[in-house]
Amino acid sequence: MHPMLVVGSVAFDTIHNNTGTHKRILGGSATFAAIAGSVFSRVQLVGIVGRDFPEQTVEALTAHGIDMSGLERSDGLTFHWEGRYSDDLTSRESLCTELNAFAEFHPKIPEAFCDTPYVMLGNIAPELQLEVLDQVRNPKLVVADTMNFWIESKREKLLEVLRRVDVLVINEEEARQLSGKHHVTQVSKALLAMGPKIVIVKQGEYGALLFHNGEVFAAPAYPIDQVTDPTGAGDTFAGALLGYVAHHGNARHDTLRRAVIFGSAMASFCVEGMGTDRVMSVDRKAVNERFRAFRKLAHFSSEDEVNEVEREDRGPEAQPTV
Amino acid sequence: MHPMLVVGSVAFDTIHNNTGTHKRILGGSATFAAIAGSVFSRVQLVGIVGRDFPEQTVEALTAHGIDMSGLERSDGLTFHWEGRYSDDLTSRESLCTELNAFAEFHPKIPEAFCDTPYVMLGNIAPELQLEVLDQVRNPKLVVADTMNFWIESKREKLLEVLRRVDVLVINEEEARQLSGKHHVTQVSKALLAMGPKIVIVKQGEYGALLFHNGEVFAAPAYPIDQVTDPTGAGDTFAGALLGYVAHHGNARHDTLRRAVIFGSAMASFCVEGMGTDRVMSVDRKAVNERFRAFRKLAHFSSEDEVNEVEREDRGPEAQPTV
Repeated sequence: MHPMLVVGSVAFDTIHNNTGTHKRILGGSATFAAIAGSVFSRVQLVGIVGRDFPEQTVEALTAHGIDMSGLERSDGLTFHWEGRYSDDLTSRESLCTELNAFAEFHPKIPEAFCDTPYVMLGNIAPELQLEVLDQVRNPKLVVADTMNFWIESKREKLLEVLRRVDVLVINEEEARQLSGKHHVTQVSKALLAMGPKIVIVKQGEYGALLFHNGEVFAAPAYPIDQVTDPTGAGDTFAGALLGYVAHHGNARHDTLRRAVIFGSAMASFCVEGMGTDRVMSVDRKAVNERFRAFRKLAHFSSEDEVNEVEREDRGPEAQPTV
Repeated sequence: MHPMLVVGSVAFDTIHNNTGTHKRILGGSATFAAIAGSVFSRVQLVGIVGRDFPEQTVEALTAHGIDMSGLERSDGLTFHWEGRYSDDLTSRESLCTELNAFAEFHPKIPEAFCDTPYVMLGNIAPELQLEVLDQVRNPKLVVADTMNFWIESKREKLLEVLRRVDVLVINEEEARQLSGKHHVTQVSKALLAMGPKIVIVKQGEYGALLFHNGEVFAAPAYPIDQVTDPTGAGDTFAGALLGYVAHHGNARHDTLRRAVIFGSAMASFCVEGMGTDRVMSVDRKAVNERFRAFRKLAHFSSEDEVNEVEREDRGPEAQPTV
């Protein structure tokens, strides 16, 4: 098992959805990614909070296996985001974004974290992602997340980030926006040409696609009876994915496929609860159980059955129409 | 191998897409389904055409393994549809629908086809689908396709069909329309409650979901570099699916999973060419090869690796955070 470093936002979210209003619950890209990663590996978090951030939350995250010594304290207030989801949870509207302490954030990676082999650049400004890249030394694998806001406003800086990372995790709409292409095979080619050797396109309720080494892997989404809150699902996906890779200490293709499934499994837990509630309560046993459920969901033939298909290739009744 | 019966439309399509205008090419729901099914099993087609339908097309379909003796000839002209696809092929506009001979269609199932065990009710008016159900005797499995037009205009008749069929194949948008639900798990429950014991929701470029026996199977879509023409892909999917089931003579859950993959494989060939061009040229060997490509696309762990996950359940390092 190897440690992973997560750099991103730590926030309070106020969320309005069809279950009501949830005021100032724990959120932020680094928070979700770190919690998800810590189910698989040791996690180091770097972020900034304000004077209003409760010490007991820091303690709870520490107890969950996250090294919080890289959490900076500002005199100001903690980043606060407020949003409202549509009834079917397929869209959301930002009502208020108070950057507060986050406005002054410049990630300072503690010396003890600079040689951490697995690095996750959460969904923050590309300049800040570059500041992290300038501080870490010879990481084995760097994952970057991004969003429409940075694609529109900081495209050049983002392209600089992409030239320096190994993995881009991005949702489909944003992947189209960044690549200028529509069909996902063309989208992935364009994104791979920007630098990362691994591209993962998240398709929400339709799953995720992994492009690596000339191969494509299609992961389904877990069918959930009742989605409660999609906030943080993308960060959770990326954090669990990197945590699984860090646990195994390699990013071979077969490891990456399972990492995508573990990412999807953790994300499926995430959306079942409000904010971080559900991901905080999931242990490795629960996620392994969901991994097996994914296998049941996606697999369709044993080796025996593939051999049967091979026989049909050769047998006379395989070509009934000839 | 058992025979399958396909009842639906046989048509000429005039298609405008980004490769140009393709005038009066072979189309129709029964045509695509029969061609796709005939790669796996013997197919009997029931439909109607006009005096303008070339004898050589009938001969070509017969040579492909389709029993065309149920094709009715009318004095009028053959059904003609004209449509234009958007540049990204995600939407299409109907420019002209000339029912012609099809307006007077009442399926007459030849006596020799009435005991055929596998029956496909192509995407035609629910009343006509009911007329087929009144003529066939003790089929082992009946598959029905439908579309938004019938959901809106013939809902009661369609519900009557659904009470009498085994499998509903439907695209996601239409499944939402028919069920009044949004999330696919709720959609599928509502549709299963309408009668069919098997529901297959087609998600286009995202694949398909099979709901059967309390299990869910998620099939990916094959990533295609260049989609040429999506016309008939849904009919091709359903025809190949039923053809595979007919070939094996059972609709066990594991057979159905592979049938969905073979349906998806044939549909992926379909969209690569104009109209029926590509599906007409595919043999069982080619589709088996694509089946194996689907396995590579969707599978992510061997039994060994699942056992490794089981060991992680128990091993001390499986719970790094405790």
